[in-house]
Amino acid sequence: MTIATTSTEETYHPAVFRAPSFHDRRARFAAGEDNPRAYLERCLEVIAKREAEVRAFTVVNVEGAQQAADESAERWREGRPLSPIDGMPIGIKDLIETKDMPTEMGCAALKGNFPRRDSAAVWALREAGAVILGKTVTAELGGAHPGPTRNPFDPARTPGGSSSGSAAAVGAGMVPVAIGTQVGGSIIRPASYCGNVALKPSQGAINRGERQTTSQSTHGVHAGSIEDMWQVAAEIVARVGGDRGTSGLSGPMAPPAARRPDSLVVVETAGLSELDGPSQQAFDGVLARLRGAGVTLLDRRSLPEAEAFECAIAEADPICNAVIAWENRWIYRDLANRGAEAISPRAMTLLERAEAMTPADYRAALAARAEAQARQARLAQFADALLTLGAPGPAPVMPEDKPGTPLAPRPNGRASFNYPASMLFAPAVTVPLCAVAGLPLGVQFMGLPGQDAQVAGIARWALESLDPVAVA
Amino acid sequence: MTIATTSTEETYHPAVFRAPSFHDRRARFAAGEDNPRAYLERCLEVIAKREAEVRAFTVVNVEGAQQAADESAERWREGRPLSPIDGMPIGIKDLIETKDMPTEMGCAALKGNFPRRDSAAVWALREAGAVILGKTVTAELGGAHPGPTRNPFDPARTPGGSSSGSAAAVGAGMVPVAIGTQVGGSIIRPASYCGNVALKPSQGAINRGERQTTSQSTHGVHAGSIEDMWQVAAEIVARVGGDRGTSGLSGPMAPPAARRPDSLVVVETAGLSELDGPSQQAFDGVLARLRGAGVTLLDRRSLPEAEAFECAIAEADPICNAVIAWENRWIYRDLANRGAEAISPRAMTLLERAEAMTPADYRAALAARAEAQARQARLAQFADALLTLGAPGPAPVMPEDKPGTPLAPRPNGRASFNYPASMLFAPAVTVPLCAVAGLPLGVQFMGLPGQDAQVAGIARWALESLDPVAVA
Repeated sequence: MTIATTSTEETYHPAVFRAPSFHDRRARFAAGEDNPRAYLERCLEVIAKREAEVRAFTVVNVEGAQQAADESAERWREGRPLSPIDGMPIGIKDLIETKDMPTEMGCAALKGNFPRRDSAAVWALREAGAVILGKTVTAELGGAHPGPTRNPFDPARTPGGSSSGSAAAVGAGMVPVAIGTQVGGSIIRPASYCGNVALKPSQGAINRGERQTTSQSTHGVHAGSIEDMWQVAAEIVARVGGDRGTSGLSGPMAPPAARRPDSLVVVETAGLSELDGPSQQAFDGVLARLRGAGVTLLDRRSLPEAEAFECAIAEADPICNAVIAWENRWIYRDLANRGAEAISPRAMTLLERAEAMTPADYRAALAARAEAQARQARLAQFADALLTLGAPGPAPVMPEDKPGTPLAPRPNGRASFNYPASMLFAPAVTVPLCAVAGLPLGVQFMGLPGQDAQVAGIARWALESLDPVAVA
Repeated sequence: MTIATTSTEETYHPAVFRAPSFHDRRARFAAGEDNPRAYLERCLEVIAKREAEVRAFTVVNVEGAQQAADESAERWREGRPLSPIDGMPIGIKDLIETKDMPTEMGCAALKGNFPRRDSAAVWALREAGAVILGKTVTAELGGAHPGPTRNPFDPARTPGGSSSGSAAAVGAGMVPVAIGTQVGGSIIRPASYCGNVALKPSQGAINRGERQTTSQSTHGVHAGSIEDMWQVAAEIVARVGGDRGTSGLSGPMAPPAARRPDSLVVVETAGLSELDGPSQQAFDGVLARLRGAGVTLLDRRSLPEAEAFECAIAEADPICNAVIAWENRWIYRDLANRGAEAISPRAMTLLERAEAMTPADYRAALAARAEAQARQARLAQFADALLTLGAPGPAPVMPEDKPGTPLAPRPNGRASFNYPASMLFAPAVTVPLCAVAGLPLGVQFMGLPGQDAQVAGIARWALESLDPVAVA
């Protein structure tokens, strides 16, 4: 039994937490000692126990999942699984279309939206035998306005967003894998808050199907292990490739082997100066362990190219916000026009910002983004990957919006540690290496576009080789 | 009065044909001697006279257009037009969403589809004061299966596709401008068959909104003149920019001045060897006029880099077909699943080809496409633009599909002269410089991505300075 059994009674410690996993059950499926239907039922038990508090799902398709799991069990019994993820229960972020469940995107204007088709990645998962268990809560339209999901390690806190339900479902042990999406910080931040392993791949590496949203949106994978994370990404891409016009995720079909880096560039980003003391202490602990393992750490003080890079990403927040606002402009306007409360006041704020922009403003943001990408490329000769935290500390307490007062800013937490990888089109993997005050905090590795396998291998090495760091 | 008065009684001659235009009316609008409502009524008269035979439109929104034209007339009267295209009646290809008319994409599965929103380009046109007059017929889903439109110069012949209605509406003088889209040959080919000027811009230069379809799809402009063509593209891009992640059409807001090229590379493409004698004679006539104007003509025999380029585009047809099939795979499958006759047998054939492909097949096509793009870039130092015909001859007679016999191949004509610009992401402008057997034939200029204004300037020079060529 590998389903996590955390409850809100427990505090999180990375050395104690047992993350959900699937890959380690395959030998038992093949031997007839376990089967995907039984695995699914264990997931459903965790959901029954935790969902009322965590609220990770918008809908769970129990009957559909049971039927798919039975069919998978039959295939394993006959020794002909469709893939290594045949039978894996997976949650799908509710921005992504599924033929058997509505896709409401956390948005009032899309209540009841049910296009009855699978997005390319969902189609591929079914082809690989995966069990599409349910739709997971997203912040409205992948933006800032939160859904009802709560952090599985403390219901007073945010799970992060916008892939709130995907991160929380994995953190609560409800599913071994859930699909998320990131345009600013929407995979890596919630994964960091919820103790997930997660991949935000290189731009375009996983086929986004018809709904492209923005030029820096990606599909990605939340998981309990590097093995499941990578296998799911690889199985999708083997069937539907990457975005149109791109060659898709590159790397092996099997999870990359652990790989110790010779050197890493420690990225400070705009957010590091705002770290609370215990989170800084946890990050320092990770750096000390890396040095202890013989890894050379470079930064803006030791390497001029790193300083040039830091300068280029210093404005990552406004650059990403300009790109995202402009590229969502017509979608938001169309939804807003459907009625008075069709989109949230937070979304209206973004729309107003977008409608005040000109094409020249947008082009300036694109130029700044391209310059940052060029500066990252120049770092490659000095280090195997970049390193920072997955978020600026553990999950914050979720603010409540009170009528008549200004909206709480950033209810899903700050994305300052995530904008760089998003605007750089860079692969990013977070691994749960730290605990701060009994809550998870992820460590994020980033590479150049196309280096997804290398980054996953380095993250795997860190997860398997470094002692986790817990700070009270 | 600048609305064309061709009828099927007349044969086409480029020196006699009076193409519809709008730009030359603005001084009279400003002086109160003409107004957009009167202009619109003249368009509606031509539609009343020709539409039963040409069948360019799926729907004409007469009342909405009259109201918009009245509002525009009021602005001109008050001396405050929103843009130089304020009041211009425009047809919109029925692949593109409009808030006030259905978008059925020529596809049975999408009968009645009415999303009640404007795509970015349509939104921009309304902001600029343009009159969105109607939706123009598209071949099914922008593919091979034709709609009911007929060539305005001979109803037995195809108007070309997939932008069939946009090209025919301009060719018949129903509107001065219509918006089309191209992924293979869907703008330049029908424009060539229908005597249009047309721009297939650099990849991404005009915002495609939400529906991206493929990595080499573009929005473009069919027009009666270079001036209207450019102004419409510029006004769209000034308001909504290019595709997400791109900087959009570059060049002046006003139509580029005519510019004589010093040298051109004559591109043979896979189709030139299949030209009929009179079309070859017409093209030779254009080349002779160019030489007479002092333009140096280069080709694969005189320039090794041109030979390398020709080799790279020799397989443009299968490369484009692989890219287009793969990238449409899930959209077509979803539509096909809606019912027995949801998509045409031609679309089913494409779907079957797509479903037999692997991600590796697709990556091979992308690699070949990228290589061709690199070889085009190496030509830039030798010539100001590339030159070929807009289509392999005038519009062919439209075949009839007969039950029990194989489907007629290429009912919209061959796109062999258009695949290169599509896969190269290159700007292409066709101008109606030739007539063959009383039918139009366009001459196509192509540049490097981003050189839209340069190509438009060269095309304008050719149109204004070279005597047209008519071959019996």
